[in-house]
Amino acid sequence: MNKVNLSQKFNLFDEHWTPKIVGELNGQHVKLVKIKGEFVWHKHDVEDELFMVVKGSMVIRLRDKDIQLEEGELCIVPRGIEHKPVASEETHVLMFEPISTVNTGDAESELTVRNLDWI
Amino acid sequence: MNKVNLSQKFNLFDEHWTPKIVGELNGQHVKLVKIKGEFVWHKHDVEDELFMVVKGSMVIRLRDKDIQLEEGELCIVPRGIEHKPVASEETHVLMFEPISTVNTGDAESELTVRNLDWI
Repeated sequence: MNKVNLSQKFNLFDEHWTPKIVGELNGQHVKLVKIKGEFVWHKHDVEDELFMVVKGSMVIRLRDKDIQLEEGELCIVPRGIEHKPVASEETHVLMFEPISTVNTGDAESELTVRNLDWI
Repeated sequence: MNKVNLSQKFNLFDEHWTPKIVGELNGQHVKLVKIKGEFVWHKHDVEDELFMVVKGSMVIRLRDKDIQLEEGELCIVPRGIEHKPVASEETHVLMFEPISTVNTGDAESELTVRNLDWI
């Protein structure tokens, strides 16, 4: 049972769109991910997904609107809702979602990552 | 489906030790709480609890050690583990935990808060 320093953890990896696990509780994972550019449109059929910007800014594109997230802001994308994360510059994001969640949801692609690493 | 700006939400209340709900996902609540002073020793029998310091600093006292959390640091207290949150100055904390969680766990007291408000 140790604490997690977000800044130190983000210094441990460089890849984009590859979430790292930093905590587990109540069947959920706490993940950190660095993002830059455009992700794929996708949805998660049975998982709600929380995005919180730790550094930088991002847009969560939805089919009917965009949600702009700055540092210190979070958003929950409910299950079943199509979304596409985008960041013009490298952005550090904390995510909270069920252990079962696959990053690309129903849109298997070369960006799909399974068996995430703990850091 | 709206975003949550943590700083704006913390400006909406002043009470200490009274968590406010800002989000719900997968049977969990995202809560914000301002703390100052010493809370009661308690444990949650069936809920793991995440504390993340947004502003200030706190100590999570355990029976065998203390965990010091600064801004940008988080810690997960597993179910069944006795803990006592303490903050010498007012500190802003984000929590993730199951909807069923009562703040004082097994230690009902005048600090117990049920029927938390959404902000």
